[in-house]
Amino acid sequence: MYSCQEQSNIIKVTDNVSLYEALKTANAGDNIVLANGTYKDVQIKFRNKGTMEKPITLKAETPGKVFIEGQSYLKFGGEYLVVDGLYFRNGYSPSSAVVDFKISNKDTLDEIANNSKFTNSVIEDFNKPKRDNDDLWVRFWGRNNELSNCYIAGKTNRGPTVRVSIAGVESINNYHKIVNNHFGPRPVKGGPSGETIQLGDSYTSMSPSHTLVANNLFEECNGEVEVISSKTNFNEFRNNVFYKSEGSLVTRHGNYSIIDGNYFIGDGVNENYGGIRIINTGHWVTNNYFFNLKGKSFRSPLAVMNGIPKSPLNRYNQVTDVVVAYNTYVNCSSPWQFGVGQNLAQADVLPKSEIRSARAIRTTVANNIVYNEEGLEQIVIENDKADGVLFKNNVIDNQGKPFNNYNGGLTEASLELKKISDNIWLPTGIPSSVEPYNGFDFNTITKDLFGNSRNNNNSIGAVVGVDVNNPNILDKSKYGASWFSNEVEAKEPTTFEVSNTEELIAKIKEAQDFDIIKLKSGTYNVQASLVINKKLNINSDDRETTIINYTSEENTPLFELHPKGFLWIKGVTLHGNVTNYAFASLKENMSNHFLLTVTDCKMENFNYVLKVYKESFAERITFQNSTISNCKNGLELSEETNDKGDYNTEYLTISNCNFLNVDKNVIDYYRGGYDESTIGGNLEVSNSTFKNCGAKEDNGILINHRGIINVAISNNTFIDNKVKLVALLWGAKNNTHANNEIENSGEIRVEENLKQTLMY
Amino acid sequence: MYSCQEQSNIIKVTDNVSLYEALKTANAGDNIVLANGTYKDVQIKFRNKGTMEKPITLKAETPGKVFIEGQSYLKFGGEYLVVDGLYFRNGYSPSSAVVDFKISNKDTLDEIANNSKFTNSVIEDFNKPKRDNDDLWVRFWGRNNELSNCYIAGKTNRGPTVRVSIAGVESINNYHKIVNNHFGPRPVKGGPSGETIQLGDSYTSMSPSHTLVANNLFEECNGEVEVISSKTNFNEFRNNVFYKSEGSLVTRHGNYSIIDGNYFIGDGVNENYGGIRIINTGHWVTNNYFFNLKGKSFRSPLAVMNGIPKSPLNRYNQVTDVVVAYNTYVNCSSPWQFGVGQNLAQADVLPKSEIRSARAIRTTVANNIVYNEEGLEQIVIENDKADGVLFKNNVIDNQGKPFNNYNGGLTEASLELKKISDNIWLPTGIPSSVEPYNGFDFNTITKDLFGNSRNNNNSIGAVVGVDVNNPNILDKSKYGASWFSNEVEAKEPTTFEVSNTEELIAKIKEAQDFDIIKLKSGTYNVQASLVINKKLNINSDDRETTIINYTSEENTPLFELHPKGFLWIKGVTLHGNVTNYAFASLKENMSNHFLLTVTDCKMENFNYVLKVYKESFAERITFQNSTISNCKNGLELSEETNDKGDYNTEYLTISNCNFLNVDKNVIDYYRGGYDESTIGGNLEVSNSTFKNCGAKEDNGILINHRGIINVAISNNTFIDNKVKLVALLWGAKNNTHANNEIENSGEIRVEENLKQTLMY
Repeated sequence: MYSCQEQSNIIKVTDNVSLYEALKTANAGDNIVLANGTYKDVQIKFRNKGTMEKPITLKAETPGKVFIEGQSYLKFGGEYLVVDGLYFRNGYSPSSAVVDFKISNKDTLDEIANNSKFTNSVIEDFNKPKRDNDDLWVRFWGRNNELSNCYIAGKTNRGPTVRVSIAGVESINNYHKIVNNHFGPRPVKGGPSGETIQLGDSYTSMSPSHTLVANNLFEECNGEVEVISSKTNFNEFRNNVFYKSEGSLVTRHGNYSIIDGNYFIGDGVNENYGGIRIINTGHWVTNNYFFNLKGKSFRSPLAVMNGIPKSPLNRYNQVTDVVVAYNTYVNCSSPWQFGVGQNLAQADVLPKSEIRSARAIRTTVANNIVYNEEGLEQIVIENDKADGVLFKNNVIDNQGKPFNNYNGGLTEASLELKKISDNIWLPTGIPSSVEPYNGFDFNTITKDLFGNSRNNNNSIGAVVGVDVNNPNILDKSKYGASWFSNEVEAKEPTTFEVSNTEELIAKIKEAQDFDIIKLKSGTYNVQASLVINKKLNINSDDRETTIINYTSEENTPLFELHPKGFLWIKGVTLHGNVTNYAFASLKENMSNHFLLTVTDCKMENFNYVLKVYKESFAERITFQNSTISNCKNGLELSEETNDKGDYNTEYLTISNCNFLNVDKNVIDYYRGGYDESTIGGNLEVSNSTFKNCGAKEDNGILINHRGIINVAISNNTFIDNKVKLVALLWGAKNNTHANNEIENSGEIRVEENLKQTLMY
Repeated sequence: MYSCQEQSNIIKVTDNVSLYEALKTANAGDNIVLANGTYKDVQIKFRNKGTMEKPITLKAETPGKVFIEGQSYLKFGGEYLVVDGLYFRNGYSPSSAVVDFKISNKDTLDEIANNSKFTNSVIEDFNKPKRDNDDLWVRFWGRNNELSNCYIAGKTNRGPTVRVSIAGVESINNYHKIVNNHFGPRPVKGGPSGETIQLGDSYTSMSPSHTLVANNLFEECNGEVEVISSKTNFNEFRNNVFYKSEGSLVTRHGNYSIIDGNYFIGDGVNENYGGIRIINTGHWVTNNYFFNLKGKSFRSPLAVMNGIPKSPLNRYNQVTDVVVAYNTYVNCSSPWQFGVGQNLAQADVLPKSEIRSARAIRTTVANNIVYNEEGLEQIVIENDKADGVLFKNNVIDNQGKPFNNYNGGLTEASLELKKISDNIWLPTGIPSSVEPYNGFDFNTITKDLFGNSRNNNNSIGAVVGVDVNNPNILDKSKYGASWFSNEVEAKEPTTFEVSNTEELIAKIKEAQDFDIIKLKSGTYNVQASLVINKKLNINSDDRETTIINYTSEENTPLFELHPKGFLWIKGVTLHGNVTNYAFASLKENMSNHFLLTVTDCKMENFNYVLKVYKESFAERITFQNSTISNCKNGLELSEETNDKGDYNTEYLTISNCNFLNVDKNVIDYYRGGYDESTIGGNLEVSNSTFKNCGAKEDNGILINHRGIINVAISNNTFIDNKVKLVALLWGAKNNTHANNEIENSGEIRVEENLKQTLMY
């Protein structure tokens, strides 16, 4: 029984057992304080009931000094529960979520949380060991729950970082809040299901959610093409900052979103930073600011998709009844694209139910400003006709370059930019003749990007007037946990000179991130794999005289790349025993990414030069100015055969290399499954020579890159390779070849439409 | 140029030309008065602009004394236009609508109407001549338009009576009002596309409409299974009365309807009167009253359908997030059905994309009352499991008969009925222990059926308390045009005795509806078809001595049934010349229905006994106690071969008849096209004898009724008919046979799943 105290208690707990007990026995208003320290394998089921006036709180003694590690999770069940100040790291959830607003599947009110909050906390690198083992880091159920002021970063395994689930009647019309968080870097996942926030799923697309996502910073949220995937109705996205995030805010399923007052900030270079991608009905895109974005097509600042006629519920509904008003686009390469995803050319290989031919209708684009420092060929890109779109009172400065004005809906003007901050430049000098178009219900757009009223002196574009203060949108102290910063101080690297094998082994262990191991000339005989589990440079001055001779038994690598193992190696000769490998990832439990850059090296007598196992992922793998000879296999990244869109590296780059006498594939790089939303990987092979390779390869292809979306093979020389094909390119995707010399080596063939397994 | 008067004018017009001119030149505030009289071929384009304070009005001099006839229509374009007091009759629209809130397809504001009104008027029997020529009688476009206080009845041709179109950006979020109308009888159409009101279509299912349908009387709106078909979002249906209407209010496409405070009144017998059929997401069904309804399955008072998993947009989405609360069901045979339309048994003949196996989820049924004078086997019928439905605090009086109580969500109680009016009986005596369940957002249900507050003394069921006045819901003076009533005074029929052919011909012409032509014994030699274009009885006392001998050339009928031709014939022998017909409809322009009842007759020596041509429709065709012999063909209703679900009669009934020596089919009755929403026709063949028939029929079937949904063949005798099959029954539909004696006549075969052309 509870004791009937009126006063709230402070209950200090110091270990898991006393914590569990305190959570169970606390009364409304009680504060449970978790003493500073590291807690392992903490599986918290916070099942209790506070009240609005007297919530029950679990707080770190000092926010940020309480570490949750190992196999841990936090589950809420009940009402008015608050958790504040925890740091999840060095572990993972043994359950399907790290923070879960439900305890069990019993669906009773005791088990589901309402009016509860996870706040001022951090979840960092809390990955399940295997990429295909999916989980969520925060999963919402119930109603009126909140994720606020948290820093969440580093998810690499399958599954959105945050999901709002509305599977039960207790979870519709939920009015959850995801506010004031800092979503730190989420690296590219190499396949789908890497969203930062997903609201619902394709089975809840018609259901009312009413989730608010506001005032969050999304920094380098690169997991996949969708940073936010809205899949329910009536969600609101307000005043968020998308900063260098390789993806878009996508209304993937569901209708009637409000996307108001958000910032989408690019760097003027990276074409992967997205904007807003629109599918379905009734969305209002207002008061948003787009800066320096170079994304195109799916990644355009405004990408309005084509739908599938009579679309199945889980595919692409037509865009209808959308309003895009009062937005400002500065220096974006392709501000507005319509008919995105139109794929009539694929009619031969796709079923009719996958052909997106239904253009947007009843859509209004009005009162927007587009400013381009360099004029574009067109302001509006029509992948399919934008004949269902009404353009009204948009002002464009295209530096005098002509463009289609859509029956006067786009008006040319000469504008000036006024700098508000590095990332915010506001166009000024809108002709007074261009008054805001008063579309239906436009009077409900009462404020501008900065929250100022539009009632008086209203004007087009995201901001009324230009006499505004810098909103400091990139001041990270405004987002996330008050006690945490993800800014790391640069450290001078240490250089370790080594001259024998023992030293090499010792210094690799001793070194810290970004340190340098410098090899003196000589031969290093290595008998067991060298483990790379940190960011390390290894180099010498002369690859001809600096030789690592690897003598271990078969099927192990000289360099074993572990999670977070980044290796830059330069100027070394690596020598195998024909059965072993030069580089490989772990066979399993690659819970985090690796990286490999090989420069000026020679690799010879290996079974595999590189073997990347299933569920391993590297953002980049690069071989340059190097020679590979007398090996059985080259670079092998072909184990993701479940055809779910996954692959093993985002960028595989080969330049200025020599491949000589490699028996099988020189490159085998695979991505399987038809999925228009997986738009990687990337293979570049250039200025390289391939001679006498591939003869023993069963599939008869020298460079095998089936399913990879972006491929460029250029300026290479292929001589005497006994293969049928040098490569088989996928014409419908971004696969290209140019200036290759092919002699006695088969051919490069382009197939427009590659047959792929349907994923849906 | 307009003159700039401040005063409003009264402009009286007396013919089409002056009317057209006045409409064009009127100023805001002007009243155009159309003089009493009949206007032919009036094609009104009311293109002008009034203001909110000063609308432009076109009014009948005396409401109801201005008749619009011939090829006429009324189109609105502009703003604040009102038309009041017209009577459309004796004609049809040469356009695609009778009243249209748009003039042309130019989609400019001049062409589309806003804030305009068609009121206090009548449209009656204004049918296009051919059933397949579709039109609408009132079509909405634009915004804030109104159809109010009109009487509209008698539509027989294809197309909903009223449609709200939201095809253009000018027509979404329209807030149209359809209020205070009397929708009079719309006869069964015999196929789909006979709705009384359709809001949107399957291509606008995701779009916001916000149409209000309130305070209307729907009387005998029998056109098809959907009286109202809601196909857009956010529509509201409030306080309507559905009286003896053979159909339902259906949320066919689109989400988030409000269905509040409506009355569904049956007669305790007719199983075709429906209630509310639910498809899709987020509907709220509250405060409705259901009385004496015998409908089941699709026609249940509450029919919650199964959806198609990942349904194509134009088919059946799953039901999710629906609330059914505070409704009262009195003496309904099957108040609640779930999983309606579940058709897993058809998996062999239908594509996967037509199989409805997705059950309703996140649906709440709470605070309802069900009262049954005779206990039902079950309160909830589960065509598929209702495991996604939460039942809470419903009270059931099932006269002590046990029922599944769904985890206590259905509470048994002993109630009494209190009579408020003939059609409204309120259950009293709810146990005080059953308090209203407070589901999410239930506090938004602030009023009851009668508009009384639920704030205090709230209780379950449609009405708070029982001390209420009779709302007189069937007082027709509350609906429709103030000057019009559809109640006709009964007239005593006149009987005309005739004794020769000339008299027969003359009296048929002279007679009025329901009069009687009495034939004396003798032979009547008729050389040309007798036209039946009214409701007529023809009979004699002795069929053996009263003979009509038809001698006309081939392929014409003795009795030619015209639109509105209802013939009851009794006790006569009809004799043909082997090449001509006994009965036939018109070959074309059957703009209205016919009816045929043949009793105690003998028909011999005809090519066809009955030939019903394409696009003809009879609600009932009956042959009883009659003999058909020595004919080439029997009853032929098989020309609706476009497979769009159409057919030629709702009820074809043969009882106590003798068929002898009919060469081909004795009956050929066809409906084609797979369409789960066409749930007719009806064939009953009983207590009849068939001898030596069908030998020359190519298809080898004696009674051919392919595609007819309801078939009962019972207690017949089949002797020496040289056919392969007596009949081929469709097992999956309502086709039955019993107690037939079959001798040397093939067999009756049942095929569970008949292959049909898909209509969608």
